[in-house]
Amino acid sequence: MTVQANPQANPVVTSDFITALRIISHEGLSDAFAHLSARTDGGNEMLFMPRRSPALVQNDELFFVNFEKPVPQSSLHQAIYKIRPDVKAVFHFHSPAVILLSVVGQTVRPMHNYSAIFYEGVPLYTGTGQVESPARAGEIAKLLGGAKALMLRGHGAVVVGQSIREVCMLGLFLEESARLQTEATRLGTPMFLERDEAERIAKRTFKPTSVDRAWEHFKAKCAA
Amino acid sequence: MTVQANPQANPVVTSDFITALRIISHEGLSDAFAHLSARTDGGNEMLFMPRRSPALVQNDELFFVNFEKPVPQSSLHQAIYKIRPDVKAVFHFHSPAVILLSVVGQTVRPMHNYSAIFYEGVPLYTGTGQVESPARAGEIAKLLGGAKALMLRGHGAVVVGQSIREVCMLGLFLEESARLQTEATRLGTPMFLERDEAERIAKRTFKPTSVDRAWEHFKAKCAA
Amino acid sequence: MTVQANPQANPVVTSDFITALRIISHEGLSDAFAHLSARTDGGNEMLFMPRRSPALVQNDELFFVNFEKPVPQSSLHQAIYKIRPDVKAVFHFHSPAVILLSVVGQTVRPMHNYSAIFYEGVPLYTGTGQVESPARAGEIAKLLGGAKALMLRGHGAVVVGQSIREVCMLGLFLEESARLQTEATRLGTPMFLERDEAERIAKRTFKPTSVDRAWEHFKAKCAA
Amino acid sequence: MTVQANPQANPVVTSDFITALRIISHEGLSDAFAHLSARTDGGNEMLFMPRRSPALVQNDELFFVNFEKPVPQSSLHQAIYKIRPDVKAVFHFHSPAVILLSVVGQTVRPMHNYSAIFYEGVPLYTGTGQVESPARAGEIAKLLGGAKALMLRGHGAVVVGQSIREVCMLGLFLEESARLQTEATRLGTPMFLERDEAERIAKRTFKPTSVDRAWEHFKAKCAA
Repeated sequence: MTVQANPQANPVVTSDFITALRIISHEGLSDAFAHLSARTDGGNEMLFMPRRSPALVQNDELFFVNFEKPVPQSSLHQAIYKIRPDVKAVFHFHSPAVILLSVVGQTVRPMHNYSAIFYEGVPLYTGTGQVESPARAGEIAKLLGGAKALMLRGHGAVVVGQSIREVCMLGLFLEESARLQTEATRLGTPMFLERDEAERIAKRTFKPTSVDRAWEHFKAKCAA
Repeated sequence: MTVQANPQANPVVTSDFITALRIISHEGLSDAFAHLSARTDGGNEMLFMPRRSPALVQNDELFFVNFEKPVPQSSLHQAIYKIRPDVKAVFHFHSPAVILLSVVGQTVRPMHNYSAIFYEGVPLYTGTGQVESPARAGEIAKLLGGAKALMLRGHGAVVVGQSIREVCMLGLFLEESARLQTEATRLGTPMFLERDEAERIAKRTFKPTSVDRAWEHFKAKCAA
Repeated sequence: MTVQANPQANPVVTSDFITALRIISHEGLSDAFAHLSARTDGGNEMLFMPRRSPALVQNDELFFVNFEKPVPQSSLHQAIYKIRPDVKAVFHFHSPAVILLSVVGQTVRPMHNYSAIFYEGVPLYTGTGQVESPARAGEIAKLLGGAKALMLRGHGAVVVGQSIREVCMLGLFLEESARLQTEATRLGTPMFLERDEAERIAKRTFKPTSVDRAWEHFKAKCAA
Repeated sequence: MTVQANPQANPVVTSDFITALRIISHEGLSDAFAHLSARTDGGNEMLFMPRRSPALVQNDELFFVNFEKPVPQSSLHQAIYKIRPDVKAVFHFHSPAVILLSVVGQTVRPMHNYSAIFYEGVPLYTGTGQVESPARAGEIAKLLGGAKALMLRGHGAVVVGQSIREVCMLGLFLEESARLQTEATRLGTPMFLERDEAERIAKRTFKPTSVDRAWEHFKAKCAA
């Protein structure tokens, strides 16, 4: 079945899914338009959300989608899961600093401890508009390659990772890094990190324990 | 009758009117000075608000105004309804990025998925001060022509649309687009969209369902 | 008596005084350091506040100070009341955009409907540090001349007006105007207003009814 | 004993410690990663915090650490206490404007009344990544010398002082000063203060009574 309601969804995954949406919303990464998904246990489906604001989507509105059937807003997620078997979660959003950087033809480059995680590089998709078709989704997924993030000109970004918590943090780090880069570029000549240096820093700082520590922090902020 | 209290106002329209004022206020588009209006069923009157902060105006303070009689703050609204029979709602405001762009002689140009909606162009009225007189209001309405938005140098903007919900979103999109344009201009050489490209994107993205989805989102934020 | 507790203070003045402090604080014009005063009925004293955050000062902590006796933090206020008999309230603060503009040697110049009120010009005091002595306070008061506002390099600003409500709004307008000017200067060539043009706009827009409308708005925001 | 729970901690110190963490968090100086410490009475130990967000750490999670034993995240604190017997509290954080300034090779220079406190200069450590090892911590402590603050390229800052309240305020002032400097540099030619001038201002303005006044203010903001 292509789309089914979520009774069989893992309650931990569902809870993380909704928490991630609230964090994203609370931290200013989304208005009413952003989409998160998580590969489900079998590996050939994803847990997905309806066309509704991340601030408002509820537990029982989540549903499963397989990777072949057309569902509105899902084509980019499907295309990525199909060519990146290592990816367990995908987050697509339209945050302000990411869009800003993209419209002057830049993408995030490692410059500080948080941007180091993007040491593999962040490709820029220069086509305009939305994802629009499965064919275009495939093109974007191909451009992403083995990276953790890709930016879409005048549109937003997509980040991929090992868990909902990880893509949530990658989204926050990408936006923060984009903001820093826009400000640093206007201020002087930013000292970027070499790839090796960035990779070394990322491996020391971006660990599951740090992701969990940040997750606990941002989750508590939403609840306050 | 020129001005009458609102008992006969459509309760849905009244509720949307007050919600729009709260959204505008909550999202930083207005301080104590901004005016919204909605053409009423007959087509020759508008529902209007008193000289009071959009954060504070109440349901029962709204009133009807026809298009000929002078009422403080209403001349721009009246002038637009008279020459634009297609327009159902008008919103005039003084948001920071709009004012910023206007004092350096720029107006919003399509650059990303949200600014695409202004593909018809946004004229700049270069006269200074307030609207001040029905004659000047007529001049501004004429300059607006068939566009969705116009900016007023050192003063603010006016947006027009098919419903209260639509002008509320157009106001938010105009301010966000102005903010992005000011930042992108300082950062590098922004890649603007061609008119046709912008129009194509706008027609895909700015639909009644998207307006409703955004409206639900911003309404919920105000209530939180 | 130089300093006395406030039992005989006009309760309306006291209430406006505390409300103004809360507005100033809520709108980001002050941290723990800012001082407001109001000339009292007789004309030779002022109602003043202790060395405490504007967010925290209470009604019964206000006290009267005459214009000759030394009281910490009061010398600038005293010096202004003595040479400006028309002034009924004084507000001295250290807001971010005002400080920013001052350290690059600029002060606010009329550019939009809100900055128009400063059509008489805003002198810049280039001495560094605090007010520090009655002699220096006298110098600053003299530099203010007949203007509504003065900026102090690397320090802050002082605004003067006809009432507590008016100086509160002048403070908000000065900071907002300074912010706009810093952004416009970085963006392009701002179109400033001529003095006559600014004065004409100010006289149309900055009226007691507009001050009251803004006051009602900002007071309600604090209480929310 | 290297690490012990806090029953014997001075309750005033513990209370200030937690309040400082909440202020830091509330004012945007930290996300989930920042560390505060306070030298304890005997002088050879410090009160320290676990690897948890400053917004969430609780009283009974604080513990004592001596200056020789390796404890995660503590090496920079230990190194500073060992070579700076005058220092009673250390705060290490990663605030946005500090990071921004550091990646273009600048550090804070006195320009206004708040930045004056850094009249001794703020060294920049140009190594990238985290503190990582006791050896590197020693290098950083040496570079700090007799100053009150040091910035770490692409990483953050450390401030040292006479009490928890003082380092909390120094942290806030450093970030605010960094923000001002980044904006002033983009706006024109900032007028910096001479060292003597800055020292004179700092000695007039940064007194224990001002620290307490600011502390009361920021503490109340957190509780609101």
